[in-house]
Amino acid sequence: TYVRGIHTVTLIPGDGIGPEISSAVMKIFEAAKAPIQWEERNVTAIKGPGGKWMIPPDAKKSMDRNKIGLKGPLKTPIAAGHPSMNLLLRKTFDLYANVRPCVSIEGYKTPYTDVNLVTIRENTEGEYSGIEHVIVDGVVQSIKLITEQASQRIAEYAFEYARNNQRASVTAVHKANIMRMSDGLFLRKCREAAEKHKDVKFTEMYLDTVCLNMVQDPTQFDVLVMPNLYGDILSDLCAGLIGGLGVTPSGNIGANGVAIFESVHGTAPDIAGKDMANPTALLLSAVMMLRHMGLHGHAKKIEAACFDIIRDKKVLTKDLGGNSKCSEFTEAICQRVLDLD
Amino acid sequence: TYVRGIHTVTLIPGDGIGPEISSAVMKIFEAAKAPIQWEERNVTAIKGPGGKWMIPPDAKKSMDRNKIGLKGPLKTPIAAGHPSMNLLLRKTFDLYANVRPCVSIEGYKTPYTDVNLVTIRENTEGEYSGIEHVIVDGVVQSIKLITEQASQRIAEYAFEYARNNQRASVTAVHKANIMRMSDGLFLRKCREAAEKHKDVKFTEMYLDTVCLNMVQDPTQFDVLVMPNLYGDILSDLCAGLIGGLGVTPSGNIGANGVAIFESVHGTAPDIAGKDMANPTALLLSAVMMLRHMGLHGHAKKIEAACFDIIRDKKVLTKDLGGNSKCSEFTEAICQRVLDLD
Ligand SMILES: CC(C)[C@H](C(=O)O)[C@@H](O)C(=O)O
Ligand SMILES: CC(C)[C@H](C(=O)O)[C@@H](O)C(=O)O
Repeated sequence: TYVRGIHTVTLIPGDGIGPEISSAVMKIFEAAKAPIQWEERNVTAIKGPGGKWMIPPDAKKSMDRNKIGLKGPLKTPIAAGHPSMNLLLRKTFDLYANVRPCVSIEGYKTPYTDVNLVTIRENTEGEYSGIEHVIVDGVVQSIKLITEQASQRIAEYAFEYARNNQRASVTAVHKANIMRMSDGLFLRKCREAAEKHKDVKFTEMYLDTVCLNMVQDPTQFDVLVMPNLYGDILSDLCAGLIGGLGVTPSGNIGANGVAIFESVHGTAPDIAGKDMANPTALLLSAVMMLRHMGLHGHAKKIEAACFDIIRDKKVLTKDLGGNSKCSEFTEAICQRVLDLD
Repeated sequence: TYVRGIHTVTLIPGDGIGPEISSAVMKIFEAAKAPIQWEERNVTAIKGPGGKWMIPPDAKKSMDRNKIGLKGPLKTPIAAGHPSMNLLLRKTFDLYANVRPCVSIEGYKTPYTDVNLVTIRENTEGEYSGIEHVIVDGVVQSIKLITEQASQRIAEYAFEYARNNQRASVTAVHKANIMRMSDGLFLRKCREAAEKHKDVKFTEMYLDTVCLNMVQDPTQFDVLVMPNLYGDILSDLCAGLIGGLGVTPSGNIGANGVAIFESVHGTAPDIAGKDMANPTALLLSAVMMLRHMGLHGHAKKIEAACFDIIRDKKVLTKDLGGNSKCSEFTEAICQRVLDLD
């Protein structure tokens, strides 16, 4: 049902450089004749009845209707008790899987080549439960919550993802030697999912060992699945291997096709409005979105154009080592898209 | 009181390759005329009264008397409910600071050069509290415990360490944006310690950001201080940057001079007894021990000899890229120690 016709996607441009990189993506999508119509929504948290922070009803309704969103960086307001907008969005739409492919970009030099892995992070619980107490003065506990349901859901997702994306292995990342019950439960669910997906190789590894091995030889990894906090850590580490958050796409996936794709870098207020931002992370997130929607042809073309321009090294934004403007970089990609036609 | 005379140190050779690398260290210490007398103790956990696992009284007494220990790798028995021996030792002697210097080794090629940092890990609480519950079927919680006392102690330690080791900055690593109360408490204590040590620069950074920056440019870091689990992760990541656990020293520091220095690699049962093991990590841990005891001259000489032999590349164990035996590598270091005299 996704493949034909025009699809409406909720666009959350975000703060800082968000609007610039969003319009860059829109331009490139237009050049590629991607059948996407954007429904722009502003997302600033508002206080709902009872004082609970929530996203504006208008944005919520748009997402409920379209199911698919693309979002730029959002600043987290400093109001006391204000939640991270990113977390609020994940929660609101029960986006339980955070998927971050980390693939080396040809021509963009880092200490590593041939990185080609995907981190799949449980996105709803663990240390992110938000439950904390002061036991007595000076003694605090935070609750790490692990449930069978969420663990099973993410484990299943990881194996399905591996199968659907022609990936050979899934590694469960854990510290069940220390958190025997919670990480133990998570690990058990991964093992059970592995039993059901014998076509995909399964391994398990301690988080610390993964980090060590990762910086020594990332090519040994393929799909990695893990609880929330470990995913936060490992996905950033892996992004670092391929050049940082400026070039790393991300998708937050929920049930029934609902998903929000986002660049995970910051709002970069220092360069906002100066036509200096690098739209690559948001563009590659939008490419992930196209694949999620089954629009593989458009995805492939846009991705190829982006990588071609980076490989060519002629028109690059400053953070990528060049001295071109965001609009010039965008224009070069658009031109390349047309050339590929 | 440490500097003159002969000092008795408790030696826990450990399992697998433990005995081989321990005797390598003893040989090198002898060649260097280090004023150390070894008191060898076996550490296999036993069940004490009430069924609690404990280390053998003989080993405990030795440590209580000598205060300083050097330990090889210990295997964790697979008996149900058996604790990691490493954790049991840290707990038994309240070794609250885990200190791991990660310094690039000249001549040992990794993707990074000029790494020169120290991770200081809170070693007694956090996710390692061991407190876990099943709330209802399929719902588990693990408690992350953060106390004012332990946070303050480790924060103070980090700044004292920086000052005593001519290091310019301390970075507190946290996720206080997510665990506002627990990591918030930890962070507050770091800030307070920073106030008291204005000669040392203080910064704070999210753990995920540290991981990303670390793999992009580790030279930006100096001393890093963090809660237990983050230290487990980050210390392994950093070890990976300089060549892995085979070359990374570690010290567990307690109050009143009590400390155990250990290699943190495994027991390597596959090569145990075959004269193939690499004693570098244990040797460099022993060098840390000498510095802890104020024996800086001996520390410097042994360390220089070890690094010289690695830089020369003529006599290296297999894991270091050579084809020499453990005994040959050890002999080369001994010879170099004598040459340095
Ligand atoms: C912004 C922050 C709350 C978030 C997190 O910790 O999950 C970010 O680091 C991420 O990885 O998306
Ligand atoms: C052996 C294991 C329990 C230990 C830990 O998790 O702390 C190890 O990884 C370490 O870093 O010393």
